[in-house]
Amino acid sequence: MKIIAEKINGTRKRVAQAIQERDAEFIQNLAKEQAEAGATWLDANAGTAPQREPEDLIWLVENIQAVTDTPIALDSANPRALEAAIKVVKNKPMINSISLEPGRMDVFPIVAEHKCPAVALAMDEKGIPKTKDERINTIGRILEKTRSMGIQDDSLYFDPLAMTIGTGQENALLFFDTVRQIRAKFPEVHITCGLSNISFGLPARKYINRVFLALCMESGMDCAICNPNSKDIQTTILAAELLLNKDRYCLKYTRAFRAGVFDE
Amino acid sequence: MKIIAEKINGTRKRVAQAIQERDAEFIQNLAKEQAEAGATWLDANAGTAPQREPEDLIWLVENIQAVTDTPIALDSANPRALEAAIKVVKNKPMINSISLEPGRMDVFPIVAEHKCPAVALAMDEKGIPKTKDERINTIGRILEKTRSMGIQDDSLYFDPLAMTIGTGQENALLFFDTVRQIRAKFPEVHITCGLSNISFGLPARKYINRVFLALCMESGMDCAICNPNSKDIQTTILAAELLLNKDRYCLKYTRAFRAGVFDE
Repeated sequence: MKIIAEKINGTRKRVAQAIQERDAEFIQNLAKEQAEAGATWLDANAGTAPQREPEDLIWLVENIQAVTDTPIALDSANPRALEAAIKVVKNKPMINSISLEPGRMDVFPIVAEHKCPAVALAMDEKGIPKTKDERINTIGRILEKTRSMGIQDDSLYFDPLAMTIGTGQENALLFFDTVRQIRAKFPEVHITCGLSNISFGLPARKYINRVFLALCMESGMDCAICNPNSKDIQTTILAAELLLNKDRYCLKYTRAFRAGVFDE
Repeated sequence: MKIIAEKINGTRKRVAQAIQERDAEFIQNLAKEQAEAGATWLDANAGTAPQREPEDLIWLVENIQAVTDTPIALDSANPRALEAAIKVVKNKPMINSISLEPGRMDVFPIVAEHKCPAVALAMDEKGIPKTKDERINTIGRILEKTRSMGIQDDSLYFDPLAMTIGTGQENALLFFDTVRQIRAKFPEVHITCGLSNISFGLPARKYINRVFLALCMESGMDCAICNPNSKDIQTTILAAELLLNKDRYCLKYTRAFRAGVFDE
């Protein structure tokens, strides 16, 4: 299971403040704690100020890679910010994200040129497709485009976009079905999602999120955008990999046990 | 989700002692705490002493129903003990269990006569079948027999027998596949299992058990033999029912939240 660590996100108030005040220590602590928890990529989102974004993203990248070698996921829809950040990034970054939204079209060539892994949102000109078939259709259209540009299927992390149960009781089932169909139809691609979206607006969210994570993994999702420091996330991934026959000789599970990951 | 509450089991040392010493308070406390936690049935297993079993089982039944109206699952392979206990039981009991093991043949007529719900183990003359197909075949043979005796499919709770991951890494996947196939092939029957078997011999078992429970529910299992007082079990069932579109308007989840079931 791969993890895109979500904490360094300028749409979060405290992170926005740290970016504005150039509080390097705050950002570096977030980078270190997420890297040490086993993040595959550290998301870096400089927030929503388009004028400042290139400069802010560069500042984030430089501060993150001052404390860890874990690759960065450059989280922006702004080609200028992406191009600027990609020049200073040391390890090959992930691009977060491409989609068929009009504003994101210019991100495709950046992914193609730098041969970066990329998150691909199942969104088109009209936003988030409602049905499973429409989402699969959108993903197919994205793949037509990426293939024509020489982007490999297995460098793409499709996000079918989990919507909260709070606005539709069938939303998780729709998500699992979509994941299964992506897995069947496009076997090379990866599948990811922002885990906590599923419980937006509901109480006791961590209990929903951890069960959702396990069920997503069973459906075929192999990457999550989440908080890697959460014990719930860590223990769920370990147990789900064990149960889904992805932990040879139970080695990861028993090692994590000896390392004190579990509370008992 | 139905729960067969597992604590009153004479193969557990402390319970065996309570039965032997006629420690009614100990048994009644187990009965009360499990009933209050929402058990559908309270398992009553008098242990392994064949001579004393009828008398011990009657004592268990009388003490349990002195403190709760929750139905009892009479857990015995001994027709004498079952017949004796069934005479004193007030609410219609469950019988735990039938199977094609030679020693359990005389339990079928008791289930048929009293029209009890029953746990049916996917076991035959040779023990636990190894493959999914053999288990499905065994279940088919049990259903031939029960149907011929007028036992309704929907009164049966088939246990496909989860084996620990510790002795076979594919055991959970085998279990989920078997559950899916039972659900497809015999749509009327219920499916259950002893939840904690999956983690026997492994460390940090509760983390495995709770993820296993969620994945079993997704596969189609609708009953678990477990400890209903476990917060892990309770919160996993609530979250899984929410995610699997079995909690209309999120009512059960939000009510449980207000009742303080969750820690946050």
